[in-house]
Amino acid sequence: MKPENLSKNRERDIRRLHQKKNRDRENLFLAEGFHLLEEALQGIFHPVLEVFVEETALPRLEILAKRFSRLRTVPSYVLSPRQLEKISTEETPQGVVCLCEKKRGPEKGLNEASAPWLLYLEELSDPGNLGTLLRTAAWFGTSPVLLGPHCADPFNPKVVRASAGAIFHVEIREEIEPDVLRELASREGYAVVATVPKGGLPPKAIGKGGRNVILLGNESRGLSKELLGLASQRVTIPRRGRGESLNVALSAAMLLYEVFR
Amino acid sequence: MKPENLSKNRERDIRRLHQKKNRDRENLFLAEGFHLLEEALQGIFHPVLEVFVEETALPRLEILAKRFSRLRTVPSYVLSPRQLEKISTEETPQGVVCLCEKKRGPEKGLNEASAPWLLYLEELSDPGNLGTLLRTAAWFGTSPVLLGPHCADPFNPKVVRASAGAIFHVEIREEIEPDVLRELASREGYAVVATVPKGGLPPKAIGKGGRNVILLGNESRGLSKELLGLASQRVTIPRRGRGESLNVALSAAMLLYEVFR
Repeated sequence: MKPENLSKNRERDIRRLHQKKNRDRENLFLAEGFHLLEEALQGIFHPVLEVFVEETALPRLEILAKRFSRLRTVPSYVLSPRQLEKISTEETPQGVVCLCEKKRGPEKGLNEASAPWLLYLEELSDPGNLGTLLRTAAWFGTSPVLLGPHCADPFNPKVVRASAGAIFHVEIREEIEPDVLRELASREGYAVVATVPKGGLPPKAIGKGGRNVILLGNESRGLSKELLGLASQRVTIPRRGRGESLNVALSAAMLLYEVFR
Repeated sequence: MKPENLSKNRERDIRRLHQKKNRDRENLFLAEGFHLLEEALQGIFHPVLEVFVEETALPRLEILAKRFSRLRTVPSYVLSPRQLEKISTEETPQGVVCLCEKKRGPEKGLNEASAPWLLYLEELSDPGNLGTLLRTAAWFGTSPVLLGPHCADPFNPKVVRASAGAIFHVEIREEIEPDVLRELASREGYAVVATVPKGGLPPKAIGKGGRNVILLGNESRGLSKELLGLASQRVTIPRRGRGESLNVALSAAMLLYEVFR
């Protein structure tokens, strides 16, 4: 590893990736902190292309390079604290920022999905919720995660952070229209289970023999009529107390806990 | 309701409640947005003492006052957008801020705890996690929630927001030392269950007949030896995928889901 200095132009290019339109156009995104770098190096998606490190954090990078030989071939740049602050999306920069390529594993059509459990998220708008959901999906090995249109950008820095590295382990398929989902479900024999805030069956009623896709809706509006119409079953986490609602990421966690119990 | 204007001095006093030391000294805290105001009006803890509303949001306040007669006796103040911004702790103020008194319901000693399930949180430091945990506790009716020393302040605006109003429905007991917990557990016949990131039994092994207190630890360090030493059982959410860890609020949700399943 022979770290170089970062030019003003490159600094500006990196900084532009704070915006979705530039992440989309360049097919790149940022992940911050040594924990995420380590996860990226162990992950199967989204290879690390470049590493930007503050001088004081260089020794830590070198230790990591001993564990991950892959890191030794990644170009690295040494930054002043001020430079790092500029490219960082965190209030308190974590000493290292990595530039990653959005890249899925071997391309598969949805018709080759073979996972027994899928999650489909409709207009999930909060980056923290999406990241937490990906983290839970990674824990339970539920991959791919299907995103409908108008979800938060999974490569938003807040999602990447909240995923705690899961973004590098879980396959994400974006912009799956309800029509495509319906076709997939009928062709591949998935039962469609809708999560609703009240009136559904308890999650233990979900059939565990076959393939299922669990639908989760927008934080305020829940699932649309169109998606509810696809479901053969509706489930609700039973309430015992006075709480008014459950966060969507928590609901997903409880459902996944139940189906893998 | 005859809203008044807010003096500079009062504005400064309210603003000071952004800081923990002032919340502690004054025994007051802030809750923002109409959703939280409604929850506060329905809650059994922490009465609303005053309401600060932006002029454009006045009609909405008046509609709410028709539903909750209690609100009609609460002094209200009309603020300019700039004034509201000053007392608000949100990046995007929600039109209304309420001043609440930290006040538990009828005082009970810990020795009168009668809940079959208690949560004890050790040094839980992230306000979002604490708020989410309170929200889950409200959903499952697990009250009181016991906080050990050095937890995030439950009256921190981020906790209040993440609790989605649960702060007004769930009793919180702060600064419970491990010694006090041990004494409570032995006197009241609670089994102590420690949540550990690996190596524990699956949660379905938790005995559901008796009384149990579930311990959850700090986000990075987990539970201390001292608390682990109190536990007669250790549980872990079984992992199936490659995920490295689970968020503490998610773990708590899955455990509560399991014990009330």
